[in-house]
Amino acid sequence: MSDQEPAPAPPVAPARPHPDATRRSDRSRRAIYAAALALVSEVGYPRTTIEGIAARAGVGKQTIYRWWSSKADVLLEAFLDLGEQAARAAGQDPAAQAIPDTGDLAADLRAVLRATVDELCDPRFEAPSRALAAEGLVDEQLGREFVAKLLDPSLQLYVDRLRAAQDAGQIRPDVDPRIALELFVSPLAQRWLQRTAPLSHAYTDTLVEYALYGLVPR
Amino acid sequence: MSDQEPAPAPPVAPARPHPDATRRSDRSRRAIYAAALALVSEVGYPRTTIEGIAARAGVGKQTIYRWWSSKADVLLEAFLDLGEQAARAAGQDPAAQAIPDTGDLAADLRAVLRATVDELCDPRFEAPSRALAAEGLVDEQLGREFVAKLLDPSLQLYVDRLRAAQDAGQIRPDVDPRIALELFVSPLAQRWLQRTAPLSHAYTDTLVEYALYGLVPR
Repeated sequence: MSDQEPAPAPPVAPARPHPDATRRSDRSRRAIYAAALALVSEVGYPRTTIEGIAARAGVGKQTIYRWWSSKADVLLEAFLDLGEQAARAAGQDPAAQAIPDTGDLAADLRAVLRATVDELCDPRFEAPSRALAAEGLVDEQLGREFVAKLLDPSLQLYVDRLRAAQDAGQIRPDVDPRIALELFVSPLAQRWLQRTAPLSHAYTDTLVEYALYGLVPR
Repeated sequence: MSDQEPAPAPPVAPARPHPDATRRSDRSRRAIYAAALALVSEVGYPRTTIEGIAARAGVGKQTIYRWWSSKADVLLEAFLDLGEQAARAAGQDPAAQAIPDTGDLAADLRAVLRATVDELCDPRFEAPSRALAAEGLVDEQLGREFVAKLLDPSLQLYVDRLRAAQDAGQIRPDVDPRIALELFVSPLAQRWLQRTAPLSHAYTDTLVEYALYGLVPR
């Protein structure tokens, strides 16, 4: 999305709205995202309803049904918007999603993983993400939808960066980037999801070092 | 536990039971484990109750309260028992929990990760494990208890095996085994938990290869 933050495309294209209506819509849309994220954090996914989101956002539920077909769709866009806000707050252009390529792969991976640690520890992100991830574990359809729409696009950024490193001769040519990225992304994900051990920048720096250079003596 | 499978230690030690009572207790205990695992798979952790477990197992709920103080405790032991049954079915001594040390670290890790893939794909294990993991994501106390009692002890087996490899000069001496194990364990955990991609023996073999030898050219 651009900085003008247009409303998400409705299922059926409406007549072009009056500017005042656009501003009103944008306020409603933000209130709906906030309500959806707050509700799923507080009561979990199964007890989050369109009615509950509408009541909390102070809009009629028809307003929600006009733009989205299900609570899963509302939450999906609320998360995409949260990610864009976080990118903007970090001074990045949310449209230009890519892992930096300074030529130093280790430094670039350390930087992006440190930023991910900070995001995972942000309370605005943590509670709704946990609630949604928990439901995705048991509701296979929801889980697959959110992996496809939220997780896979971010993993693809690592695939792209690792491919560039392969082209530069910095990663073995026979390595599958889609598996390789899991050596540093999945440990961070598991520590966060299951709280198996603390997160820190030193920890993700170590993951990058081990993954790139291996555990056996060189 | 030994092959005689004694009942778990009750909170207050009872008088030594008559042999017939022991056999009855053992049957009840197995029925309670099965009921707890089935219920948590079907209705999730929050809606699993001691009353529901008792009704399904065909025992009085006082029988459950005599041995366990909470549904979390029942489920914890049901999972420990499931793991022991799986070990026994695989021809292992469940008391002698250790990763084999043939001297070939890569081969030993490949073998144990292949066996883990098989267990994760076993439907008897999958549904209750998912239900419990999902609840652990949002219920921090439950999550920490199950990590401490179920997950950490298995991760410690990898720590021990990696330490032995360090002693044998097969792993860099400066590597922290508790972090190193995550390079192959966490990717498997995340693929299983979040269904991000398929599991296979070829996949875990690849993880071992990448983790041991690193992604950059040697």
